[in-house]
Formats: sequence, structure tokens, C-alpha cells
Amino acid sequence: MVIGPEAIGEAAARLGSRVRSTPVIEVESAAFGTHTPITLKLELMQHTGSFKPRGAFNRMLASAIPAAGVIAASGGNHGAAVAYAARELGHRAEIYVPETTPAFKLRRLEQYGAQVVATGASYAHALAASEQRAKHSGALTVHAYDQPEVVAGQGTLARELERQAPQLDTVFVAVGGGGLIGGVAAWYAGRTRVIGVEPQSCPTLARALEVGHPVDVDVGGIAADSLGAQRVGDIAFAAAQRYVERIVLVSDEEIVAAQRLLWDRLRVLAEPGGATALAGLLSGRYAARDGDRVAVVVCGGNVDPARFT
Amino acid sequence: MVIGPEAIGEAAARLGSRVRSTPVIEVESAAFGTHTPITLKLELMQHTGSFKPRGAFNRMLASAIPAAGVIAASGGNHGAAVAYAARELGHRAEIYVPETTPAFKLRRLEQYGAQVVATGASYAHALAASEQRAKHSGALTVHAYDQPEVVAGQGTLARELERQAPQLDTVFVAVGGGGLIGGVAAWYAGRTRVIGVEPQSCPTLARALEVGHPVDVDVGGIAADSLGAQRVGDIAFAAAQRYVERIVLVSDEEIVAAQRLLWDRLRVLAEPGGATALAGLLSGRYAARDGDRVAVVVCGGNVDPARFT
Repeated sequence: MVIGPEAIGEAAARLGSRVRSTPVIEVESAAFGTHTPITLKLELMQHTGSFKPRGAFNRMLASAIPAAGVIAASGGNHGAAVAYAARELGHRAEIYVPETTPAFKLRRLEQYGAQVVATGASYAHALAASEQRAKHSGALTVHAYDQPEVVAGQGTLARELERQAPQLDTVFVAVGGGGLIGGVAAWYAGRTRVIGVEPQSCPTLARALEVGHPVDVDVGGIAADSLGAQRVGDIAFAAAQRYVERIVLVSDEEIVAAQRLLWDRLRVLAEPGGATALAGLLSGRYAARDGDRVAVVVCGGNVDPARFT
Repeated sequence: MVIGPEAIGEAAARLGSRVRSTPVIEVESAAFGTHTPITLKLELMQHTGSFKPRGAFNRMLASAIPAAGVIAASGGNHGAAVAYAARELGHRAEIYVPETTPAFKLRRLEQYGAQVVATGASYAHALAASEQRAKHSGALTVHAYDQPEVVAGQGTLARELERQAPQLDTVFVAVGGGGLIGGVAAWYAGRTRVIGVEPQSCPTLARALEVGHPVDVDVGGIAADSLGAQRVGDIAFAAAQRYVERIVLVSDEEIVAAQRLLWDRLRVLAEPGGATALAGLLSGRYAARDGDRVAVVVCGGNVDPARFT
């Protein structure tokens, strides 16, 4: 199944003012030592600090919500987005998280009014438990990246970006499970080059494109909390296979360097996954053509400032 | 002397792309519990992390620069802006700072290529020493707030904001020596209400307006490093007397609360002085009229993330 621009337009109509139109800033070439000025899409200013509410709201608004409400598995950005969207729409939310989830993340989910269930040693266990639970409760599942409404919702970021910066040649996007890049690729549909950026330690989409279908990969490293999906979604994979120009892999050191530059040059404090797309541009592994108009999506800011040094 | 909109238009023409056009974001009323959505002007993304380069560049570009270059007194945002602008324009810069200036601020000035002179126990001493030095060296002085070109340069922020958000009724601006609010008030010239916000512990403009002329005040508190001018500038005072609707005074606790909200709701990490204008709005001490379209300038982000908790 491939999402089309129509589904993204419908998602944007559904979302209305439920999500913020996040700003862009054009940054002169000297800021990051690039060949040309670049446009940064500051999506870390979205509700809950990441792009995830776009997909969560769209999934909920496109569906009839049973009395049992919605259910999702994630101790991170997706969980926060589902909890937030459910609260805003007046639905119950159950969020399944691995037992290893740190206390501050549990508190955050609870602050949004979600019922939090910590179970299993890994995300995969929590996801399986949430799916079991949904079968019994009848709650609507909101997947972190592999549902059409979720991917279409994330795609509204690209629709918004195109209105803010209509003449782009190339857009850099970080990849975890692929919800965001799937939506972005589906929106541009080849009209603008889309470059996916993954940590070398989470090469989920790179490996899938190599072998021709989604496969499980080992994940780790500094950005694993937001980009560490073990397997790319089928919907994102189909869009990426058609419309993603290539994948750039970056090291943890390059991600940290991009994080520091974003703070030093722009006072933007991104999480590692939020700085990964910029790391891809700055790595030089994708050589932009002369005069290319390039945008970079800064997709998340859920970092503890006190740990940023 | 009162600056007019023409001087600000000329400043904008001089500045060209030397300063960034910083983004605005419209934030729904729920984010900060306000009556209406508010527009935030994210000037902390300016070069060097504050609005100060607008005035520094304009002063330098409007003047013949002698071989001795430029000279300024400030260990903080103004000093960084003068050092940065001088480097960009290829001029020498001497920055006088009090002996109490912390090492990391000295390093920053030196990284921009300035010659740093630490002298005297206070800003007033460093300023006096810099003025003495300028008499001998012939260097062009760049005052932190009380020169027409500096105030006109800061006023370009309001000109830019009006293009981004043309229908504003009220703009909240933090006040230190008054360079920014002087420029903003001069630009709007009564067409839009301008509210000045000062820490209770730095009531420099409030006191001056009370007694009818600039006077020395004692300054302290959490935002004193950026807003702690002892005396408001004459140019800013004249503009404020004509065009500033009123001054709101806020406590250090209110400033910290605004800083936290900016991070929590928006992933914007402002310095205390950068969050002061929002604190003024949120204090409720100025009751906006129903349906008022309000903007708040977030004017600086020079805070150490590690100290933000």
C-alpha cells in the first residue's frame, strides 16, 4: 500500500489547528559550513516536542473511537503524542511501555492522563502485550509508524513545509520506523529529492532497501530511543522504495556534533534523533548539487537540557 | 532625540542579510493558558543568541570605521554581538569587560576574534575605561543601547515582526538599557501597544518614567546579566515616554516559571532575560483586552543548558 498526496491533504483537513504549524528558519551557509543557505523545519516545537502528534491525531480523527479508547506501545515520543492527542480529543488512552522505561517518561505519560502499563523487557514485548489487550478491550490501536493514517498524518509536515519553502530541491529526514519519511516521500512523490538519514547503529531502512523488503536489524546507539525501530514499516518501505533518493548513515559522533552546532549557532536544543537529519547533510556523504535548495527537518527536542553539555 | 521609522527602514536596508530573519510561531491559547493565541518572535535564534547584532551591525555599517576598529564594553550579549559583527565585517574589536566576567564568556569573545580587556570591578568601570581607550585609539564606540544607530538597528526586529504578523494589537518586550524597546516603540509609534517588562529587581525604565527622566537604580536578580542596566538610555527613554503603553514588573520566580513553560510547551530554551517578556504577559498584571492579538519577543537564549533544570 502506498499513501498518496490526497490522503495527506485529507489528514491536514482533519488536523486543522490540532497541531501547530511549526516555523522554518533559513540559515546562512556560514552557520553550518554548507555550500548554500539551508532551511530548517523546526518541528521540535510541535506539541509534545516531536512530529508524532500529526499521525496520532489523524489516526484518531479518521476512526470511530470505541468506549475503550485508544491503545499504543511506546515509552517515547509516540506514546507521549498518543496520550496528548487522546486527552485533547477526550478519549481514554492506554500506553504500554517496556519495564525498562525510565520514571520521568512514565510520569510524563501520566501527566497527559494516560493509563500506563509497564510490561516486558523490550518494545516488542510491550507492543505484543498491547495488541493482545486491544483484542480484549476493543480499544483502537495507534501504531508508532505502520498504519496508513499515521503515515499520512506525518506527511502533513511535508505539505506544510512545501507551503513555507516552495522551491526546495532536497529534503533531509531522519528515519526510525519510517512513519515520517514515508509521509514526506509520499507527499513529494519525486518532485523533491528526499534523503533518509539513519544512525549507523540503526540502519533499518538502509538494510530493507538493500534486501528489497523490511527485515529485522539490531539497533543501538545514541539516537536509539527515538530512531531505534527494529524493522521499518511496510507502508513507509513502499513509499521509500519509490521516492527516497538514498539513505545516508551517520555515526553517533556526527549526531552529537550536529546537536552541538544546532545549539551553538541557533539556540535550538534537539534530541539526538532530532539532529540526525542535519548530521546526514553535514557528513558530506550525500553531495548536494551546486545551488541545491536544501531543507532539513529537526523532528524532535525531547532531551533533558541538564544532560546536554 | 527620538528615532523614527525612517531610521529603522534605513537600518534594515543596511543590515540586509547580515542578520537573520528570525521565525515567529503562533501558539494556541492552551499552551500558556492565555485568553487568545499568542505570537512568539523567536529572536533567540539570531546570530550570537540575542537581538544585539541588529544594533551592532547598524552602528558599524552606518559609520566610517577607523583602522583602530570598534570598541565596546560588555561581557554579555552586547559584547558578543559587537565581536561577531566586527569579525564579519573585517574590523578589529576591543571588548572591555569587568574583572568579574566568567571565563566562559571571555573565551566566547575571544573565539569571535575580539581583543578582550578585563578591568574594573563593575560594568560602569569597564565602560569608563573603554571610553578612555577610545579617545586615545580613535576606535569607534558601539554603545550597548544609547546610540541612535544602535536603537534603530534593534528596531528592525519590530519592522520584521510587523511583516510576519501584521495585525498585532500588543507587543511585550523586555527592558534592560532600553535599546530594544526604544527601537520597537519607535517603529510602531503608537500604532500597536508596546508593553515593557522589567524584573522587579531591575526597574530601570519604570523608575525613569516615574520621575520623568533616566535615573540610576540598583539592579540585581536572575536576569541582571542581560537586563541589569543601571540607567536607561536617553534615546530609549524618549521613545518610551511617547510610545510605551506601560511597564510591567515581574518577580524572579515569574521569570523562571516562564522559562520553564517555554521549554515544556515549546522546546525553546530562553535565558532569563529572554523569558521576561512572556513572564510579563503571564503575570496578568497587564490585562489584555478581549480578542487582543498579542506578540511576545523572546529576545535571548544565552543560557547554559546544563544549568537549566
